[in-house]
Amino acid sequence: MMVARLTDGHRDEALAALPEWTLDTERDGIRRSFVFADFNAAFGFMTRVALIAEKADHHPEWSNVWNRVDILLTTHDAGGLSLRDVQMAQAIEALL
Amino acid sequence: MMVARLTDGHRDEALAALPEWTLDTERDGIRRSFVFADFNAAFGFMTRVALIAEKADHHPEWSNVWNRVDILLTTHDAGGLSLRDVQMAQAIEALL
Repeated sequence: MMVARLTDGHRDEALAALPEWTLDTERDGIRRSFVFADFNAAFGFMTRVALIAEKADHHPEWSNVWNRVDILLTTHDAGGLSLRDVQMAQAIEALL
Repeated sequence: MMVARLTDGHRDEALAALPEWTLDTERDGIRRSFVFADFNAAFGFMTRVALIAEKADHHPEWSNVWNRVDILLTTHDAGGLSLRDVQMAQAIEALL
């Protein structure tokens, strides 16, 4: 399925609905950092995100340091932010 | 338990036994990148490392992009590379 990079209007609308996420203009993606109680909680969250990502065949770029998880969502095939990133961010938000 | 930063002699010996790992002098830790067949394999590996890390109460700084996992091991309490990092690297190697 062809995935298109979001137009300016659509990305403004998407970001307004995802107030915790910030636009990374260099990567043309969206980022959010998450802080949990400890590693158990952080990696538990990552595992839930991994299952969603694998099912959607759309994977985050992410890092973890103990209780912290940083996620960047961008769409290589689209050359930047696409609807798939917005949908993934919404699915991640729904876990919290 | 007090954990000491490795002396130069001990770190040379440890690194010689971990040829795939490189010293990050800025962070005073050791790094290795792993490439797997796909995200399933990469995250499966991360899950096994997470279980080892939690059991040892010694956690990596790490990132993942699809089939790639980058791991940095350093010991905050020791202010740099310690025996715990070497033991963790050995345990990770044993998974492969």
